[in-house]
Amino acid sequence: MNNKTQTLKGFRDFLPRESRVRNYVKNILTDTFLSFGFQPLETPALEYKSTLIGKSGSETDKLLYSFTDKGDRQIGLRYDLTVPAAKVLTIYQNEISLPFKRFQIQPVWRADKPQKGRYREFVQSDIDIYGSSSPLAEAEIVAIIYQALTKLNFKKFQIKLNSRIVLSQIIAQSGVKIDKNTVLQSLDKLDKIGNKGVKDELVSKGLTPTQIDSLFDYIKTAQPDDYLKQVFDAISLLGVPQDYFSFSPTLVRGLDYYTGPIFETFIEDSNIGAIGGGGRYDDLIKSLGGPDVPAVGYAFGFERLIEVINDLDLLPELSQSPTKVMIANFDPQTLPQSLKLASLLRQNNLNTFFYPNPDKIAKQFKYADSQKIPFVVIIGSDEAKNNLVTFKNMQTREQKTVTSEELLQILC
Amino acid sequence: MNNKTQTLKGFRDFLPRESRVRNYVKNILTDTFLSFGFQPLETPALEYKSTLIGKSGSETDKLLYSFTDKGDRQIGLRYDLTVPAAKVLTIYQNEISLPFKRFQIQPVWRADKPQKGRYREFVQSDIDIYGSSSPLAEAEIVAIIYQALTKLNFKKFQIKLNSRIVLSQIIAQSGVKIDKNTVLQSLDKLDKIGNKGVKDELVSKGLTPTQIDSLFDYIKTAQPDDYLKQVFDAISLLGVPQDYFSFSPTLVRGLDYYTGPIFETFIEDSNIGAIGGGGRYDDLIKSLGGPDVPAVGYAFGFERLIEVINDLDLLPELSQSPTKVMIANFDPQTLPQSLKLASLLRQNNLNTFFYPNPDKIAKQFKYADSQKIPFVVIIGSDEAKNNLVTFKNMQTREQKTVTSEELLQILC
Repeated sequence: MNNKTQTLKGFRDFLPRESRVRNYVKNILTDTFLSFGFQPLETPALEYKSTLIGKSGSETDKLLYSFTDKGDRQIGLRYDLTVPAAKVLTIYQNEISLPFKRFQIQPVWRADKPQKGRYREFVQSDIDIYGSSSPLAEAEIVAIIYQALTKLNFKKFQIKLNSRIVLSQIIAQSGVKIDKNTVLQSLDKLDKIGNKGVKDELVSKGLTPTQIDSLFDYIKTAQPDDYLKQVFDAISLLGVPQDYFSFSPTLVRGLDYYTGPIFETFIEDSNIGAIGGGGRYDDLIKSLGGPDVPAVGYAFGFERLIEVINDLDLLPELSQSPTKVMIANFDPQTLPQSLKLASLLRQNNLNTFFYPNPDKIAKQFKYADSQKIPFVVIIGSDEAKNNLVTFKNMQTREQKTVTSEELLQILC
Repeated sequence: MNNKTQTLKGFRDFLPRESRVRNYVKNILTDTFLSFGFQPLETPALEYKSTLIGKSGSETDKLLYSFTDKGDRQIGLRYDLTVPAAKVLTIYQNEISLPFKRFQIQPVWRADKPQKGRYREFVQSDIDIYGSSSPLAEAEIVAIIYQALTKLNFKKFQIKLNSRIVLSQIIAQSGVKIDKNTVLQSLDKLDKIGNKGVKDELVSKGLTPTQIDSLFDYIKTAQPDDYLKQVFDAISLLGVPQDYFSFSPTLVRGLDYYTGPIFETFIEDSNIGAIGGGGRYDDLIKSLGGPDVPAVGYAFGFERLIEVINDLDLLPELSQSPTKVMIANFDPQTLPQSLKLASLLRQNNLNTFFYPNPDKIAKQFKYADSQKIPFVVIIGSDEAKNNLVTFKNMQTREQKTVTSEELLQILC
């Protein structure tokens, strides 16, 4: 290590404050997933390259961190959480009972061009239900999104739903003959390039103006199909308020593999775009070489969630130190009392930092300020003699001398 | 993916039960570290190879997963948590106030020969205090070990302490002239090859029988030095019972870089060996190219802890499902009541799995058994009509029909 020591571009060190926010969000997501009976899964960072690439070919290969290991195996770093889950469903078929509701929160790596909000190492947070063709599966996913975002203090957000089946019908009805995925790719850009942009693009793809008008008319008047209606009904019954989800016939999502309902979530006070998305993909696991199981899932955009939480200051308490008290290193004579107090505070679930160095007391207070520790306790010889402690509220700068029982009552 | 799909040797998939144990242990460790005012730190999986190797040279290089990325950079996977911490101390000197008490729980990768208990991907869990030369630093580390293991349900364990300064004095007193690290390397094998083995090895290294006898005599009668005595006093004041820590003059530890106290922890009912170790290493961070800060730290052997916890069945409750209730998919007519009940149970912090598929009820019960879910709830048309629910205790196979309020009282 030397002056040029640096962290790789697109990678991040998380110092305590950031690490705290990330862990907090991870814990809220985990608790929510568990409350819906979802089970945790973890897979290795490294896999055979052939497993990671599957049939996806050059697009994934381009972004994959892959190399030859010392045993001459072609291996690579986890690129997403869908392929490893398919691997697990393949290998452990006899151990996993369906329906399998699993969640997985792990970093993935992509050799992408780093830019604002795009990293080469980032956390994905996926929930999926394998082995169910019931609309209750979709409904539970939406209920989880609602619960998780509410617990994360988001007040205004919208979960938009559509269905690939609805979209296919619209395309068929409007008399379009070209591949429907080509049309979907253009429709997916509505938010970015607007009606006119999409229409121009469709013209260039060979659609006639009549077909395009018809397509847009059908979209305007589209209604959920029977399956999606059942999803909506179940979402309501699961307690999600009407304001938080809606049918959105222009919602398309980029990926080809969806076979039914699709969903995306938007934060209303933020222009960051979708902070999560998913849908039903009944054929994908099989096409990846896994068993033939229907699947529906959703990916929480973990990094975007963190970004919006920071932007909107949704978790101000996390700027505070998790440490409640610092015990100053004031007087070698009163060290026994100070150490015993540390032990007592910790027994009472108060996170307590003991300042280990015999520094000047002004320096110790400055340290507590820099760490945003709200209380500092001092035990001098007078206090020790009388079984008392002096504590300072670092915000009000007030100082008081009390018994340790009184201190506990004040801090707990 | 195909029939040959497999996980790389030395790597592991963690299915729900294992993942649960790992997360539980991680959470206990994290909470303990926070209660002592330690702060979380996370660093990237990938770093410049030059950062990872530092001055350690060929030994690390042999085990490092390293490769050239698409931008022609020599990079590698995190090999330990000490070097990344040194990097952070170097890069963020202006943002980090000393003393810095940090913890870091992350996987590391080593291209080692896999064998029982040794993996190529494994979690390390390190705590370190940077910037303190006080014996209180060592004492806090020992108190953390005691608290963490107690919270993990370990009943009998022993934290052994010694000091490299004590060992150096012993070697000097016994008149040995060769490099002290050479002598330490032999002494470190006492547990493995016994007194005679060590003596033979020391003879082969050129020590005279008189020197060796003198060495062993001094070890037998060794006493803690002043600094170590202060450590012991502070450990007691921090509330660690005498039974759990002791002076062990034959404790050496393998690594060269320790400069003061060293410690290792042993579980008394297990022959797995040390389940963690550490010590003071005041010169290492600087020698890695970082700032000149004294340091003391400890690594919890995360994988060994998990192994012993499983072997001794210390956390039997984790074999149970975290899901408390399954709601069966019994009757489409009563689906509204069933979904509302799911929502109610979740609001009352009961993890609730909704069975999404309209399968035969026997199959659903079998599923609940396979998942070890303790209660299954059924709402048939009779129950729905009378605002009741039927629940089955899967262990006793007893079935009862009650109101949902009564159900809540029984389950909460």
